[in-house]
Amino acid sequence: MKGKIKNIAVLTSGGDAPGMNAAIRAVVRACSFYNLDCTGVYRGYQGLIEADFEKLDARSVRNIINKGGTFLKSTRSEDFKTKEGRKKAYESLRNNNIDALVVIGGDGTFTGGQKFSQEFDFPIVGIPATIDNDIDGTDYTLGYDTALNTVVEAIDKIRDTASSHNRLFLIEVMGRDAGDIALNSGIGAGAEEILIPEENLGVERLIDSLKRSKKSGKTSSIIVVAEGDKSGKNIFELANYIEENMDEYEIRVSVLGHIQRGGCPSCFDRVLASKLGVGAVEALMEGKTEVMIGLHHKKVVTVDLTTAIKGEVKLDKELRRVADITSV
Amino acid sequence: MKGKIKNIAVLTSGGDAPGMNAAIRAVVRACSFYNLDCTGVYRGYQGLIEADFEKLDARSVRNIINKGGTFLKSTRSEDFKTKEGRKKAYESLRNNNIDALVVIGGDGTFTGGQKFSQEFDFPIVGIPATIDNDIDGTDYTLGYDTALNTVVEAIDKIRDTASSHNRLFLIEVMGRDAGDIALNSGIGAGAEEILIPEENLGVERLIDSLKRSKKSGKTSSIIVVAEGDKSGKNIFELANYIEENMDEYEIRVSVLGHIQRGGCPSCFDRVLASKLGVGAVEALMEGKTEVMIGLHHKKVVTVDLTTAIKGEVKLDKELRRVADITSV
Amino acid sequence: MKGKIKNIAVLTSGGDAPGMNAAIRAVVRACSFYNLDCTGVYRGYQGLIEADFEKLDARSVRNIINKGGTFLKSTRSEDFKTKEGRKKAYESLRNNNIDALVVIGGDGTFTGGQKFSQEFDFPIVGIPATIDNDIDGTDYTLGYDTALNTVVEAIDKIRDTASSHNRLFLIEVMGRDAGDIALNSGIGAGAEEILIPEENLGVERLIDSLKRSKKSGKTSSIIVVAEGDKSGKNIFELANYIEENMDEYEIRVSVLGHIQRGGCPSCFDRVLASKLGVGAVEALMEGKTEVMIGLHHKKVVTVDLTTAIKGEVKLDKELRRVADITSV
Amino acid sequence: MKGKIKNIAVLTSGGDAPGMNAAIRAVVRACSFYNLDCTGVYRGYQGLIEADFEKLDARSVRNIINKGGTFLKSTRSEDFKTKEGRKKAYESLRNNNIDALVVIGGDGTFTGGQKFSQEFDFPIVGIPATIDNDIDGTDYTLGYDTALNTVVEAIDKIRDTASSHNRLFLIEVMGRDAGDIALNSGIGAGAEEILIPEENLGVERLIDSLKRSKKSGKTSSIIVVAEGDKSGKNIFELANYIEENMDEYEIRVSVLGHIQRGGCPSCFDRVLASKLGVGAVEALMEGKTEVMIGLHHKKVVTVDLTTAIKGEVKLDKELRRVADITSV
Repeated sequence: MKGKIKNIAVLTSGGDAPGMNAAIRAVVRACSFYNLDCTGVYRGYQGLIEADFEKLDARSVRNIINKGGTFLKSTRSEDFKTKEGRKKAYESLRNNNIDALVVIGGDGTFTGGQKFSQEFDFPIVGIPATIDNDIDGTDYTLGYDTALNTVVEAIDKIRDTASSHNRLFLIEVMGRDAGDIALNSGIGAGAEEILIPEENLGVERLIDSLKRSKKSGKTSSIIVVAEGDKSGKNIFELANYIEENMDEYEIRVSVLGHIQRGGCPSCFDRVLASKLGVGAVEALMEGKTEVMIGLHHKKVVTVDLTTAIKGEVKLDKELRRVADITSV
Repeated sequence: MKGKIKNIAVLTSGGDAPGMNAAIRAVVRACSFYNLDCTGVYRGYQGLIEADFEKLDARSVRNIINKGGTFLKSTRSEDFKTKEGRKKAYESLRNNNIDALVVIGGDGTFTGGQKFSQEFDFPIVGIPATIDNDIDGTDYTLGYDTALNTVVEAIDKIRDTASSHNRLFLIEVMGRDAGDIALNSGIGAGAEEILIPEENLGVERLIDSLKRSKKSGKTSSIIVVAEGDKSGKNIFELANYIEENMDEYEIRVSVLGHIQRGGCPSCFDRVLASKLGVGAVEALMEGKTEVMIGLHHKKVVTVDLTTAIKGEVKLDKELRRVADITSV
Repeated sequence: MKGKIKNIAVLTSGGDAPGMNAAIRAVVRACSFYNLDCTGVYRGYQGLIEADFEKLDARSVRNIINKGGTFLKSTRSEDFKTKEGRKKAYESLRNNNIDALVVIGGDGTFTGGQKFSQEFDFPIVGIPATIDNDIDGTDYTLGYDTALNTVVEAIDKIRDTASSHNRLFLIEVMGRDAGDIALNSGIGAGAEEILIPEENLGVERLIDSLKRSKKSGKTSSIIVVAEGDKSGKNIFELANYIEENMDEYEIRVSVLGHIQRGGCPSCFDRVLASKLGVGAVEALMEGKTEVMIGLHHKKVVTVDLTTAIKGEVKLDKELRRVADITSV
Repeated sequence: MKGKIKNIAVLTSGGDAPGMNAAIRAVVRACSFYNLDCTGVYRGYQGLIEADFEKLDARSVRNIINKGGTFLKSTRSEDFKTKEGRKKAYESLRNNNIDALVVIGGDGTFTGGQKFSQEFDFPIVGIPATIDNDIDGTDYTLGYDTALNTVVEAIDKIRDTASSHNRLFLIEVMGRDAGDIALNSGIGAGAEEILIPEENLGVERLIDSLKRSKKSGKTSSIIVVAEGDKSGKNIFELANYIEENMDEYEIRVSVLGHIQRGGCPSCFDRVLASKLGVGAVEALMEGKTEVMIGLHHKKVVTVDLTTAIKGEVKLDKELRRVADITSV
């Protein structure tokens, strides 16, 4: 699979994230700018297998930069995990004279893409899009900044009630393995405590800290809890435990859930999507493959998909320190 | 307790609602306009008992019209349910030369206020503030319009994900006895089905309807479920039931919860609060007591507290009809 | 032009307003519900002349209830003002077997529609959509509630700066003939003064009032000025005049302009649009014509287009009174 | 002026920016964390001269992290530009046992602070806060990210109208010397053209480009114009020029103005403010002075005030390139 690229396909896969539409738009517009054809693939890898394609030109993507979700839709494809499925996908691409593929998504999306690329020597470039910001090799993933704003706006509303009633709220935010959303939104929302997957400080310490801060004059409290919190208790059990061990507050639980994935992308995510989308097309034109386009130190970079996938989650200790100081 | 009123106290009680601060502001400003003293009572009826008072003037309430919650805070007071507690509250008022009381809240707030007024012949006027819109004698309660906007904005975000993934979402909104929030936000968010406390159409009908609409070409679906839904299943059981009885969709559940109570009040709620706050002070000046200030047919009206409290929840059949037609 | 209606066309005309898409959706869905055909007309009356039509079914209008603007687009048509233009429009309708027309817009839209209806005995029903709320016979027009929220949110932002700097801001809002937006948003945003087209209180009084409120302890001030303000000065001249006559404040001007027309419709506007859209189709089915569907006292009503058009703007004196009291 | 620091004063100066309150909070909380006293200075350098001080503790800054503006208020002080004024300011500080000063603001704030620090050998640390992002030595200034979101949200609303009516909108955004806001918000809002102070591409080129994009099928257009645009025409003259030279569009102008300075800070700005506030206190504790605390490559850094002030505005050519490609 060599030669000049003339027709690039683009798909979104895995959980949706704000900014996916903006990234699709940038891929399409960059193709148009460089006089390449662009083909939209509906429903991710499943649509690749089923050749669910549509030609996209610069005008096809008007007025979508500010829309949440993905107009190409996204599914998880079991078929694509089989050799046979990927074979069919390859045939779809060949039959439609598509030379290269941009895949927009997270970890799983990249893993599937890399396998496919290696099996069929087919050029693939990934764009990181997941609200969890858990991809290595890029400072930010698409949707993360928007999700943080969604979370702090939701907690701002809950704080109205918390401080009107002298209540303690436990608020669950996304983040099964990474505490980035919890830590940043917790600082941003002025949370008193932030529980993250990367550390388990113990529930006794939590009670002590809450009692101390109550004594210092706090009349209401917000605790942000990442889904993947390691306290060994789910958020409702945690609420019960606190209730049993201190009676200074009425306790309430709120699970923010799916609102975190949606919404109009922030300006940051729209610009990021535009940069990465352009970068993806240009990388393919330069003959690159099996790479992810990321942003590092404000510059567009290319990173091996292997690096992006193997990414280990690391606690940002400086951020944890700032959280502890500003919640005093 | 007769004679010209010179000092009006104001408190908020029960669950908080957006617009409470705007109503307090209007009461304070109206007192200032009519050269009356105004006293803020912290923490509702409990603060009344404990004489937790502060003199408020026109400048005390600057920059609060747009804030959610209530800066006077709100609690549920067990003491005020006792004769002895109410006695103390009366003494607090007399000792501070307060002649009349404006209570901002819902059902429970009015019941307590009426009892107190009757026992001590003390002038009391109520302002209806609850996001549930379940008070009789007023077309709108404070906070209801804001809550509707909060709910549709949240569902708009969830719809991004629903339509990106061909999913069915069950979304729980507030409303234990009244389906107003569910019905209005359901229409506003373009929900396919709306389950409310006032009717039980049966889960079989729901499955039939979902299958029919799937056949008609719908690729994703939003079902809005009021807390007090009468299906006999909680929202998670309902999700399981649907999952077992149709496999056309992936099902997800989202409980919106406490974000519905907070947030900046809408313009409607701010203007409503301003009208009702002014109306409350003027009603007291005219010698009225044991009344609620409401809005009916765009006019400020006074309603006996008895009427407001006894209010029966009635299903708005026209709205249900519009919901059925527009979700076709 | 008699007989059972089988195919209803719908168009939007004049200035766009949030909720137009929701109204189109409701018209389409109601047609679908009653097994009628529905035809979308692009670009208002001009598209009628040019037969710029598209068949719409229930699925054509998915995911538009929350979008601002109008996907059918809107223009002002000079051709439709001529007999010849209207003749062509009539032929377009006949050639496409369209039996009735729903027109969504304001004053000018209704005037054109009525003329057309009378000339060709063609059934027409209007839906009031304009942010100015200046149509008689309905308590609310589509887009008005959303515009009020947009305005107060904008002024909330400006107030951050005003109170950080002890400044006086003059803010121009829409309303050439009617002060409804200015009066409601002014109350909602806590403005100190509100200048509206229905009254001219004189610029000297304004200076006096500003000096008085400065003395009372105000450190910043917001003055909301309707476009059609009768002070005889435009907003920049007004700013200069104030600057020359008092030096207590730095003065700034902000013209909110076109942001007031756009944005996601509020829940209120979405529900209103749904009610009116259903009402329009049902009115046509009942043989009504030359009427507007409005909302009065929370009920859907039909009003002669003549009444709607001739509407005189009346100052809501009670609202002016509330504004004066709460800005004390 | 040596020795251990025990009492830090904090002030805001110059134009307000979202995140200033969050930065004040972080300074106060960090002082509390390290057992230092903290003194709030009202009204910037003028308040320093007049000793308009208030002791602040951890609880004084509750519930302000999400508020726009600055509760310490900000003014431009002519007195502080005089030797005499600064002398008085120094005496105020000494009389109140204040050992160090954190100044939050932009260019002018830092210039004044540096002069003062040098004259009196008084420890000063700056935190960059200005929506223009025109300070050297930091990747981001406080308020910039929020302003970008405000601008794209405003343009999203205007786009509703633009695309409903096939109009061309000229939208003026802030940026007298720097095109950062215009360039980023222009990409984020999907603008067709972006005019910035750093380059003058000529008005003829603009007309050519607009005609070309109209031909390519665009039916509406958004042009973002920075205040400091170098076309030699103000935005209204530019509108007239376009109107005279092409009749494909109706032209409208919107000047976003002061709404860009206000509003709740984004999560990004809140976290940035928290980091910089903590960093400022820690820098003073480490004996640093005449430095700004900035963020570079996601890390908190200290930069000489001289560097920060002398900052030259550089066009981000990569961003301009992305803008050109994605607007194709």
